[in-house]
Amino acid sequence: MKILIVGGSGTIGRKIAAALKAKHEVITAGRNSGDMTVDISDKNSIVKMFEELKQIDACVCTAGTGFYGDYHTMTEEDLMPGIKGKMLGQMNLVLIGKRFISKEGSFTLTSGIAAEQPAKNGTAVATINGAINSFVLASAQELKNDVRINAVSPGLVEDSFEKYGNLFPGYNLAPMKKVVNAYILSIEGAVNGKILKVYS
Amino acid sequence: MKILIVGGSGTIGRKIAAALKAKHEVITAGRNSGDMTVDISDKNSIVKMFEELKQIDACVCTAGTGFYGDYHTMTEEDLMPGIKGKMLGQMNLVLIGKRFISKEGSFTLTSGIAAEQPAKNGTAVATINGAINSFVLASAQELKNDVRINAVSPGLVEDSFEKYGNLFPGYNLAPMKKVVNAYILSIEGAVNGKILKVYS
Repeated sequence: MKILIVGGSGTIGRKIAAALKAKHEVITAGRNSGDMTVDISDKNSIVKMFEELKQIDACVCTAGTGFYGDYHTMTEEDLMPGIKGKMLGQMNLVLIGKRFISKEGSFTLTSGIAAEQPAKNGTAVATINGAINSFVLASAQELKNDVRINAVSPGLVEDSFEKYGNLFPGYNLAPMKKVVNAYILSIEGAVNGKILKVYS
Repeated sequence: MKILIVGGSGTIGRKIAAALKAKHEVITAGRNSGDMTVDISDKNSIVKMFEELKQIDACVCTAGTGFYGDYHTMTEEDLMPGIKGKMLGQMNLVLIGKRFISKEGSFTLTSGIAAEQPAKNGTAVATINGAINSFVLASAQELKNDVRINAVSPGLVEDSFEKYGNLFPGYNLAPMKKVVNAYILSIEGAVNGKILKVYS
């Protein structure tokens, strides 16, 4: 398969890329790194990327984040970059990308544990993750040509503990192997419209 | 209690207002009707409303909707009014309104069945409802002064069948009495951080 990984140089994305490369043609994309440049918060940038790619069999997105910080001083200005990036950006990857994806292809988006178990100071990200989960449920009903869509909803992955562990006190770490497997299940399996939760 | 109902002239809002008026002081607000004018897609309009109100005991929002239409031609331009209105608008009602709400007060937002059981052509609304549900889970952890927050997630209410029934083939109607009761439970009860689902 020809597989696009948006965010393919990030903590999770590069592990997915490494796991897929033995069997598949992997193309990574990102704002500042990867085989291609894309800013998912800009729909024209997404269109440009897909027009260059022409056709792919699977589109994975591990890019995008949202605001972490004090709830009581948080404003719309703090929220908007995450809404335009991780939320609308992933939605646009599907809404635009569906014209470029093969029959029986797949989309795999990334939400996260915060949708159900938000951390303190993580309301913005929780909201975005909840949106992505419901977008995936709805999109799975709509996509044509046997194209599938799933969301992987990881907990705090063990590789991110050093950088982000202080934001998630008491959260169990998600083994990276299990997180990567969830993406592989979505790409190579038959699951559709699922929120693949990798946390406990 | 002094209770603000944003969307208080709408199908659900006016029934909540009618049910609450015997026991409470009810103030309705809306874009084009009600005791006060507010456009929840404009944060300055929300600030102005709360500054006029000064203090309330409960804030209910039944306003805001999202795009219904063909998934395959839907674009960011179709999505944004709902994101700015029903999603960000309800978030801003809480983020701004928390400075004006009494100790032990409450917020009650509205999501909907689409978060879990999206209808055909309803992906935009599904996404917004999923966002609101997770926003409520997260906000319940953050609000101070014993202020509570819940979301009512109604199915297609029986009063909307004539207008919207064709969008929801096979959906069971939610009795308006049960929908109104969910708002009353949120306002007068002790529940916090709950998604009060009124569908089966």
